[in-house]
Amino acid sequence: MTTEFLRVAHAAREAAAELAPLPRAPKDRALRAIADALVAHTAEIVEANAKDVEQARAQGTAEAMVDRLRLDEARIAAIAEAVRQVADLPDPVGEVVRGSTLPNGLELRQLRVPMGVIGIIFEGRPNVTVDAAALCLKSGNAALLRGSSSAYSSNTTLVKVMQEALAGTEVPAGAVQLVPGLTRDSVKELMRARGLVDVLIPRGGASLINSVVEESTVPVIETGVGNCHVYIDAAADQELAVEILVNAKAQRPSVCNAAETFLVHADVAAEFVPKALEALRAAGVTVHGDEAIARHGEVVPATEEDFFAEYLSYDIAAAVVGSLEEAVAHIRRYGSGHTEAIVTRSQQAARRFVALVDSAAVAVNASTRFTDGGEFGFGAEIGISTQKLHARGPLGLPELTSTKWVYTGEGHLRTSEGTVIAGSGS
Amino acid sequence: MTTEFLRVAHAAREAAAELAPLPRAPKDRALRAIADALVAHTAEIVEANAKDVEQARAQGTAEAMVDRLRLDEARIAAIAEAVRQVADLPDPVGEVVRGSTLPNGLELRQLRVPMGVIGIIFEGRPNVTVDAAALCLKSGNAALLRGSSSAYSSNTTLVKVMQEALAGTEVPAGAVQLVPGLTRDSVKELMRARGLVDVLIPRGGASLINSVVEESTVPVIETGVGNCHVYIDAAADQELAVEILVNAKAQRPSVCNAAETFLVHADVAAEFVPKALEALRAAGVTVHGDEAIARHGEVVPATEEDFFAEYLSYDIAAAVVGSLEEAVAHIRRYGSGHTEAIVTRSQQAARRFVALVDSAAVAVNASTRFTDGGEFGFGAEIGISTQKLHARGPLGLPELTSTKWVYTGEGHLRTSEGTVIAGSGS
Repeated sequence: MTTEFLRVAHAAREAAAELAPLPRAPKDRALRAIADALVAHTAEIVEANAKDVEQARAQGTAEAMVDRLRLDEARIAAIAEAVRQVADLPDPVGEVVRGSTLPNGLELRQLRVPMGVIGIIFEGRPNVTVDAAALCLKSGNAALLRGSSSAYSSNTTLVKVMQEALAGTEVPAGAVQLVPGLTRDSVKELMRARGLVDVLIPRGGASLINSVVEESTVPVIETGVGNCHVYIDAAADQELAVEILVNAKAQRPSVCNAAETFLVHADVAAEFVPKALEALRAAGVTVHGDEAIARHGEVVPATEEDFFAEYLSYDIAAAVVGSLEEAVAHIRRYGSGHTEAIVTRSQQAARRFVALVDSAAVAVNASTRFTDGGEFGFGAEIGISTQKLHARGPLGLPELTSTKWVYTGEGHLRTSEGTVIAGSGS
Repeated sequence: MTTEFLRVAHAAREAAAELAPLPRAPKDRALRAIADALVAHTAEIVEANAKDVEQARAQGTAEAMVDRLRLDEARIAAIAEAVRQVADLPDPVGEVVRGSTLPNGLELRQLRVPMGVIGIIFEGRPNVTVDAAALCLKSGNAALLRGSSSAYSSNTTLVKVMQEALAGTEVPAGAVQLVPGLTRDSVKELMRARGLVDVLIPRGGASLINSVVEESTVPVIETGVGNCHVYIDAAADQELAVEILVNAKAQRPSVCNAAETFLVHADVAAEFVPKALEALRAAGVTVHGDEAIARHGEVVPATEEDFFAEYLSYDIAAAVVGSLEEAVAHIRRYGSGHTEAIVTRSQQAARRFVALVDSAAVAVNASTRFTDGGEFGFGAEIGISTQKLHARGPLGLPELTSTKWVYTGEGHLRTSEGTVIAGSGS
């Protein structure tokens, strides 16, 4: 590892140890200081951002992408406001998750504690830099941030402003660190920093996430890849099903909880498919259907790849299935374990679908778009986990913590005959 | 991967899908069928075990190790009884972890669900084969077991007996699988089986655990390495401290929650160390002390390695520290994050130690030996996690599960203006 990487990683580690025992109030004060500093340094941030924007344009980046990169006064104000909202959220640290007095009198508690150092690898927008740092600080963690190289100038300034703001607070300035360097090597360093980094959260496309998962020796929380399904059961209310399907696909196609495939029970395909195709077409959606779907209307023929695809666009794959079990088997084969919806009037079908589907979220008679930390009432979200270990579904503040067992006695000793209290016998 | 490995891994995966939705009763019936079958096949198991024992002897294995390997009628009966005890434990699957009705009327629940396929790599005793399988089945998971090659004949027969017992129950026989092959390659296959295996739990020595952590692409739960510390504070009740120290070290030195180092506050070293050395000597313990310890009695000089060591023997390292903070810094540097104890009369010192120590468990005025699933009232334990992700401390049945979010609506759609119910408008 480079000296430069080790320097920031060790600084984050030391800051994490100082930050972990802090109660809520000083952390909230630090977050508000960051928000104020971001606003106060608007001109400096906009200037740094202009370099990234200029470079992106010079490289011929699409204007939509350039717009995602751009910061202006209003956007910086919104970023600062989001930090204040994180300050307003409850602190997960110190929560007693479980606790009891054991039969031998030991008082046992399981407390929520910070993870330590959280590494976050993300693409695109520089607002994530601040957002991720705020969520880490609030949950008592140091943040080791590796943003997109396209936003390096913006991120460098944002992190500097945050560190300067922290310098005047009880939270150590080292608790927010930008991984130095623009190349893929800096991602590799993060992935090999076991012992220095406690958990790594990649936020971005499937290829970034897969490479982190494959190569990292630091524990990873996978986020974000969503090949979500809507299954229209034989007992579905079809009008409801059409509306849910269109909402799940077209309300915001670029996000991970948008639907990418719909599956129709064969018994209702003849009736449902034409209605669905018409409504999807009206919403600007191209349907990639299998042969059975094609019998009921005009579609682009679906290939195997279509069923694996996370389009993130106005496209959707479609297939007819012979049963609920067949729908579940399709989802197990092609899905990414994010969110699957069933539309049905049958309590039994809903119950069976919920029991059989192995995904982070299952929606019954609701759009897949509700799998979201904001919608779930978490107040903030750092991504949506599609893995089973540690956290599954939207990641809120509690998901950025670990736990610690504490037991208190009065000289409790363990013997082969059970507990003995020191000093009481012999 | 070898065809043979893929065959058992796929069989486990298919069985896991069938097993996951089963409620408690059929799982308990299956566990009792396994217990009965183990007893009924005692002769066959003892015969298979005799081959392992013979081979171990031929290889000059120490008699204590041979004894750990040996199965007889009484041991098999005890193993069967342990399976019945697992059947008696509550089922973690289906527990509603969190739940609420969202402001828009969506009913949101977070349910405990099985992980899927759990891979377990373990050394030594064949009772672990049955124990691990029982805990996996109870929590709705398929078990993919890779035991010690020294117990391969025993394990093959134990798994065959379990599979035959399952064949007559609602739990699919494929839910218990032995990883084929005796070589390290079969461990490698498990570690690369991402997508087939949901989590890997290595149980064994530090070198096994480290290699799994470094090489596995399957998410891992680290268990078992315990370099536990006892810190004797300036405000300690010294008689209590001596008894806790001796208990933590010598009550059962071969286990991970035994103490491996004690740290004494400088203010009380002159008084405490001679008493501690005498009591430890009486318990047969060799003390590896730093120079400051050596000033107060005869010890083996401690090297840097002693402070890193997990002796698992009648040895303990010892050092004098200038403050509670110095004790914490020592633990952070040398510890394995398992369990650290403080002995003190000071509420403030106890509070500070608990806040600053970053380990799975912190004991206040109690022996480190209480960090144990049985002592915590879990009823069963598959190991003690020293990692921060997913589960930290003793792993009971709930730690072998993941969660799934379920939300139920009546046509809930997400729009930029908030939730709309399908069919209610337009």
